Amino acid sequence: MESEEHIIGSRTWPHPEVVEDLAQLRQIAPLTHCITNIVVTNFTANVLLAVGASPAMVVTIEEVAEFVRIALALLINVGTITTIDAEIMLKAAATAQETNTPWVLDPVAVGALKFRTDIVAELIRYHPTVIRGNASEILELSGFKGGGKGVDATESSLSALPAALQLAERTGAVVALSGKVDYVTDGKEIITIPGGHEIMTRITGTGCSLGALIAAFLPVTKTPLRAAIAASVLFATAGERAFMEAYGTGSFSMLFLDQLSTIGIR
Amino acid sequence: MESEEHIIGSRTWPHPEVVEDLAQLRQIAPLTHCITNIVVTNFTANVLLAVGASPAMVVTIEEVAEFVRIALALLINVGTITTIDAEIMLKAAATAQETNTPWVLDPVAVGALKFRTDIVAELIRYHPTVIRGNASEILELSGFKGGGKGVDATESSLSALPAALQLAERTGAVVALSGKVDYVTDGKEIITIPGGHEIMTRITGTGCSLGALIAAFLPVTKTPLRAAIAASVLFATAGERAFMEAYGTGSFSMLFLDQLSTIGIR
Amino acid sequence: MESEEHIIGSRTWPHPEVVEDLAQLRQIAPLTHCITNIVVTNFTANVLLAVGASPAMVVTIEEVAEFVRIALALLINVGTITTIDAEIMLKAAATAQETNTPWVLDPVAVGALKFRTDIVAELIRYHPTVIRGNASEILELSGFKGGGKGVDATESSLSALPAALQLAERTGAVVALSGKVDYVTDGKEIITIPGGHEIMTRITGTGCSLGALIAAFLPVTKTPLRAAIAASVLFATAGERAFMEAYGTGSFSMLFLDQLSTIGIR
Repeated sequence: MESEEHIIGSRTWPHPEVVEDLAQLRQIAPLTHCITNIVVTNFTANVLLAVGASPAMVVTIEEVAEFVRIALALLINVGTITTIDAEIMLKAAATAQETNTPWVLDPVAVGALKFRTDIVAELIRYHPTVIRGNASEILELSGFKGGGKGVDATESSLSALPAALQLAERTGAVVALSGKVDYVTDGKEIITIPGGHEIMTRITGTGCSLGALIAAFLPVTKTPLRAAIAASVLFATAGERAFMEAYGTGSFSMLFLDQLSTIGIR
Repeated sequence: MESEEHIIGSRTWPHPEVVEDLAQLRQIAPLTHCITNIVVTNFTANVLLAVGASPAMVVTIEEVAEFVRIALALLINVGTITTIDAEIMLKAAATAQETNTPWVLDPVAVGALKFRTDIVAELIRYHPTVIRGNASEILELSGFKGGGKGVDATESSLSALPAALQLAERTGAVVALSGKVDYVTDGKEIITIPGGHEIMTRITGTGCSLGALIAAFLPVTKTPLRAAIAASVLFATAGERAFMEAYGTGSFSMLFLDQLSTIGIR
Repeated sequence: MESEEHIIGSRTWPHPEVVEDLAQLRQIAPLTHCITNIVVTNFTANVLLAVGASPAMVVTIEEVAEFVRIALALLINVGTITTIDAEIMLKAAATAQETNTPWVLDPVAVGALKFRTDIVAELIRYHPTVIRGNASEILELSGFKGGGKGVDATESSLSALPAALQLAERTGAVVALSGKVDYVTDGKEIITIPGGHEIMTRITGTGCSLGALIAAFLPVTKTPLRAAIAASVLFATAGERAFMEAYGTGSFSMLFLDQLSTIGIR
């Protein structure tokens, strides 16, 4: 592997580029079109609002292309995909490609279920700017055997790093690989992002809202790689800080939003 | 403008009429039928329960008319409207008109997207008791140019006050205009409701759940105007108090529900 | 009534069998397939994750049977059932019967609305392992007159205990009857579970997520009765403890998740 490696995590906060990108996001408040799963809509919207973006969920076939043209970025997350959602997602992705709207694909549980696996394969043809997933999902997409049993990673993120590199090279997308340690790569550079805390897997929506936050950063940062880095570093840092004051998963969830809404301010 | 103007905000709490209406709501616990968007269902239900109403989301074509007949009030919020939702909303509104069930229309992002704009125009023909929206939405509905980019107001609420008056006069609905300062009008009286805090726009669902709370007050108060006032004053007061103890947006959300559930009690 | 009666509540915590079952659940982290209503998806997922289960919402006709075969347990909650949901739920229930996957039926507002009442009658033919409901719902299902006005119990749970026994005998399901006091019965034993707090009815999703937690315990405990007991005792205990530190409904919700995620650990 000849790719360059860097480490940017919670320990290196405040990282100058992330601070700059965050300031930009807060100034622009990018309208971020989220087509996501029914479990995490509320949390995702609150994460984007906390950081400073402007989320909007527009999810009907009559409006989806029109709204992709208005929004600055798009997230497609297949977590609870339905028959009609598939059509909507394909139309959104096609429109994003046509209008050069940057977009994130979150292929939740790809490989575990046939229907979504087929739709994700179609979605990828519309050139997502970023693909975010856990080890099982990235392994599956890269053609390695995934073995995911659903939404949870059954593989460590490091073990999927070669798959992430290959997927980035093949698709031209930045790949954001989530796990105990996060990795972000454009197929050339690899950024290792330690931090966060295991408790983040004990509340629903941290992975899904990370995908949304990457989308929100895309119209703001100089490169898609920086968008994935900025969102991942904010999550690692906010997660680590929130854990220190949390009693259990309920207070962690609240404190995580508190941290995201005040990071770099307080 | 010959309309009378009054100011009732968080500073004048406890306002005798609002206290009376709140006590009534807590006694009756009005069954409030919410057809709302997928981002805010949970928060909306928790807001209504916190104050003392009884929310229920019934959202299928086979049940919607039957449930409008059972419920004491109805909310229709088009935030994440779909093809089938449109049919359900129209049936609910038609039934509400037929049964004299008071109802609130929340025309989220009307004007920004064609499909919902057309449906909202049809819904208004069923005579909503109250229309709640931000400046962009009220400007759009009144025929003034809106220019909304989505869910967020791009205009100040004061600038939309003439539009609100005109909309109230033309439709016979009370108009609740949300913004930094809230205004409520029946086309004759104008009530100015200062208070709340800008942080309320940094969590999702405050506007949408205000619409739901207005609906919950409708079967309880002597006039629709009082329902809109009561809900708006409670939100302004609870929002202002919650902000004083909040660290960020996560704790604000929690404290806001705490305030709504204890206001006038603790 | 010749059934045996036992009392296991928050006062008897730590109850040895519940502690044992909880340890098992945390070790196995059972993949629990939830087909539930749009108001409580997020809270339900967070409750399951807090306790230690692995929730997944898979809700499209193309995937539902496939996922029932992967998951260890299934929840079907008809709270916001739609036309297409009905088909999905019936397919899921049929598959669960075929694969001997244990499943919980939560017949929200059965009897109050015709469509769901018919679907619930069909669902019951696929032999749910556990039926969880409030007094109105259990009365309705057992053939007694329910009189439910929606999601809220209008009857005390004790008054529905004979109905619960009869329903358990007739269907072979364990019946979990929720109310101020919870009762669990397999038609022979009756377990009385006091505890919890009235504030649990002031946040949305406590009943619905109890049904989900019972489902999560089913592949773990020796009998379905023990699954219903374990989940109910955890809820009663966590609810009582959370209330002691709560200021209002917002902080209660957070503290309840905190308690569920730390019970038996801290």
